[in-house]
Amino acid sequence: MSEAPIDTLAVIGVGLIGGSLARALRAAGQVGRIIGCGRGKSNLERAVELGVIDAWTHDPAEAVRGADMVFVAVPLGAMRPVFEAICGQLKPGAVITDGGSAKASVVADFAAACPVHLAQFVPGHPIAGTEQAGVEASFAELYRGRRVILTPTADTDPRALAQVRAMWTACGAEVVEMDIARHDEVLAATSHLPHMLAFGLVDALARMDEHDDIFRFAAGGFRDFTRIASSNPVMWRDICIANREALSRVMGSFVREMEALAASIEAGDGDRLLEIFERAKTARDAYVDGLGG
Amino acid sequence: MSEAPIDTLAVIGVGLIGGSLARALRAAGQVGRIIGCGRGKSNLERAVELGVIDAWTHDPAEAVRGADMVFVAVPLGAMRPVFEAICGQLKPGAVITDGGSAKASVVADFAAACPVHLAQFVPGHPIAGTEQAGVEASFAELYRGRRVILTPTADTDPRALAQVRAMWTACGAEVVEMDIARHDEVLAATSHLPHMLAFGLVDALARMDEHDDIFRFAAGGFRDFTRIASSNPVMWRDICIANREALSRVMGSFVREMEALAASIEAGDGDRLLEIFERAKTARDAYVDGLGG
Repeated sequence: MSEAPIDTLAVIGVGLIGGSLARALRAAGQVGRIIGCGRGKSNLERAVELGVIDAWTHDPAEAVRGADMVFVAVPLGAMRPVFEAICGQLKPGAVITDGGSAKASVVADFAAACPVHLAQFVPGHPIAGTEQAGVEASFAELYRGRRVILTPTADTDPRALAQVRAMWTACGAEVVEMDIARHDEVLAATSHLPHMLAFGLVDALARMDEHDDIFRFAAGGFRDFTRIASSNPVMWRDICIANREALSRVMGSFVREMEALAASIEAGDGDRLLEIFERAKTARDAYVDGLGG
Repeated sequence: MSEAPIDTLAVIGVGLIGGSLARALRAAGQVGRIIGCGRGKSNLERAVELGVIDAWTHDPAEAVRGADMVFVAVPLGAMRPVFEAICGQLKPGAVITDGGSAKASVVADFAAACPVHLAQFVPGHPIAGTEQAGVEASFAELYRGRRVILTPTADTDPRALAQVRAMWTACGAEVVEMDIARHDEVLAATSHLPHMLAFGLVDALARMDEHDDIFRFAAGGFRDFTRIASSNPVMWRDICIANREALSRVMGSFVREMEALAASIEAGDGDRLLEIFERAKTARDAYVDGLGG
């Protein structure tokens, strides 16, 4: 037994998100032993070489058997089979949390796959990431100064919630609690929609006949604007399906916003355009100021 | 008389674009004297302090009287009055070019305002910029490795074209020639549309009741994605109006793209979503590789 708050941590899915949590807890002296679990052997071996995990297995049930804390960081479409695999395998008092970008679907998956452990499950979502994937891209500072949203259910044991909160706080994150539906709406607007716009824009340009030319003449702003289109396609397919209701709604509003903007452009309504652009610039500048410049 | 290829340069509009050309030509030893012209006195005085220009005037006619090369870098809506003001004031053999982000409107403005100098006018567009504005933001390296598109008309004197080409090449830019309509279509897709998406997204979020919350939960990708929403609202109002035909067309296609994507999401069509996201990621990664990483 180690002296650390978390004696044994199991990380299911040792990629950017899971690997960065492992590194951050290790760096903070918060964890004794870390067991990794995933499908890609070379990624897991690399995770051991990098010191991110101590041992690995392809079997989620084996990974969680001795764990005090379990972190599931797999694409949303892979959550349910993981929950099924670990059900009945958890130690008494063990806590399980996840990093999924949509929360209603994860909670539904957990309730269906493993109702017996529902009190031990703390749904979570660290608002952090890059367009990179895999353990190579992970780093201990990823969560420093970032927000982590926890969306406890009516069944969640307050002690489990407190342990997950303490874990993220130790990584330098600011933990906030939120209603599940509200989380899914806020993230649809601030994260899922922008990804759809970036994927959609790059795809539209790539399909134009003259796409070689098109990309040649893209300026610096285009690079920043489309960075998120380099994100993991499987992860984003799963997010779209998991959060399809909130995302469809916000995409519908955005389409109407664009139609109104296009109408103002066609009509040459300079006053209206200026009003929109000024309001956006003010909000965006304030947002950046709020981040500290 | 200096030994430099451009004895006297007049820069109408001493902001990021005009100021950076002045700095680049000065750094390359390509210019003798630089006269700045604009409306804001403090910006012009600052430009002198910074060594970007040697002297200034508020009067475009006075600015161009002794100039061998005139660069007009004002918002598109201010082009025509500038062309009217300088008409008949140019030295014989002087060359005039511009930095406007849409070309059909600039050419139409010039032809209407100053047909007598049409042979000396070389419409141009440096594909460079930041979301910053004003001479303080200008720097000599802005155009290094960037593309400058020249869109000569049937009337353009080939010697004038060659001089403008040489000027941009001396700044480290790669000069390409393009048809006017094609320029406006390509830029509508790669630059004007992304700006509309960024302005529209930030504005939509800012108008939501809960916008304080909304922006609090935006992740790092959001900051990159929306950087261009901090661009100059007046400049973008003018671009929208000047390039309204091409921009309306490309916004219409994009709206249809988003509607199709929203339909795939609502239908939970994972195969279709994965196909779109993978194609976009491949194109985006290739675009970044093409920039040299």
